Amino acid sequence: MNDKAVVLLSGGIDSTTTLAIAIDQRFDVFAISFCYGQRHKVELEAAKRIAASFNVKSHLMLDVDLTAIGGSALTGNLELPKDRDVEKMSAEIPVTYVPGRNIIFLSLALAWAEVLGACDIFIGANAVDFSGYPDCRPEFLAAFEEMANLGTKAGIEGKKMSIHAPLIKLTKAQIIQKGLELGVDYSLTLSCYDPTDNGRACGKCDSCLLRKKGFQETGIPDPTVYHKK
Amino acid sequence: MNDKAVVLLSGGIDSTTTLAIAIDQRFDVFAISFCYGQRHKVELEAAKRIAASFNVKSHLMLDVDLTAIGGSALTGNLELPKDRDVEKMSAEIPVTYVPGRNIIFLSLALAWAEVLGACDIFIGANAVDFSGYPDCRPEFLAAFEEMANLGTKAGIEGKKMSIHAPLIKLTKAQIIQKGLELGVDYSLTLSCYDPTDNGRACGKCDSCLLRKKGFQETGIPDPTVYHKK
Repeated sequence: MNDKAVVLLSGGIDSTTTLAIAIDQRFDVFAISFCYGQRHKVELEAAKRIAASFNVKSHLMLDVDLTAIGGSALTGNLELPKDRDVEKMSAEIPVTYVPGRNIIFLSLALAWAEVLGACDIFIGANAVDFSGYPDCRPEFLAAFEEMANLGTKAGIEGKKMSIHAPLIKLTKAQIIQKGLELGVDYSLTLSCYDPTDNGRACGKCDSCLLRKKGFQETGIPDPTVYHKK
Repeated sequence: MNDKAVVLLSGGIDSTTTLAIAIDQRFDVFAISFCYGQRHKVELEAAKRIAASFNVKSHLMLDVDLTAIGGSALTGNLELPKDRDVEKMSAEIPVTYVPGRNIIFLSLALAWAEVLGACDIFIGANAVDFSGYPDCRPEFLAAFEEMANLGTKAGIEGKKMSIHAPLIKLTKAQIIQKGLELGVDYSLTLSCYDPTDNGRACGKCDSCLLRKKGFQETGIPDPTVYHKK
């Protein structure tokens, strides 16, 4: 029997590639996605398609309403930045930062892992081609792992809970190449923060721009059909 | 203007006393309570009464459905232990442990603190008269604080996020004495894991037994009306 792993799945390039890596490492994958009041809620349709395409053991869709907390352009009325310079994105934390998001999502994934008897949690955090979010950095993930081992029954009983971030040091182009090697169909994924209701990407938000840059650098055609050219 | 603090408020003795301490320390208090699918959801009525009685700045009631994750007698169908020996409660982790609960609640409180511009989070965790939960121990809380300072914008921009657990080393009797000095009306609180729909305590679950022991040791009459003698 394979070991179980919980994989955070948003439906974008990074989490999908991470899921493919967990499966390649022979884990039985339990995917978890969050309906948190994100403006791009349609990404959850992509998450469902991807979970189904990989035949995961289970896909848990959890509601946690972060609009009640607010403080982000992704969960509130702040204006979404468009057409920013990709090279300067990580220089400061943008308004798309959702306070505590990965901390909250990892906490919920950790709880589910403990119930499943899984010791491994995979997250597609990346600190190279990213938007400068503090909760995507390796030092944060290491601290989360330490906390997880002190705050759970599994941890204090000697199981080592591990947070895996296999993409942390890869460029977006390297991530895409890795995913293609593992058979990922990126046409199933959605990266956009501002998609149409039927899941067509805007092409101008930070997430679309990082995605475009990734495909340009690989030299592989981007399968995304953008709403705005 | 006073500094702001976020206080986790369940409606029991510990969180209520913690709230009184935060107010005594001249914080503007923002209370947060969680509707997480707990069988004793009626505790949220106590939380509302208490928040109102202390005239807090705001009281956020957040939904996060932990029944979808399960694994606990408080959120599922496992049988609730009754009439256990109080002295032996902390020897092993009981079925009322909710995997990841304080990690999840602190994460959500942290997110709200960041949005409010608060650096201080209060939790009524206690490691003396407690049920042996791993996420109530000081080493866990210290690790959470470190993680919080690495995973938030506030933290990496130099604000020091602090987790306060002023009850951590107090006995239940000392907690009650402290609360009475600060004017807490414990008749407003509810500790029971298995109350009636109108909030009458069972008197036999771990939480009721720890509460009874606390009042016995102070020599102060317990204002609770128990459903079962």
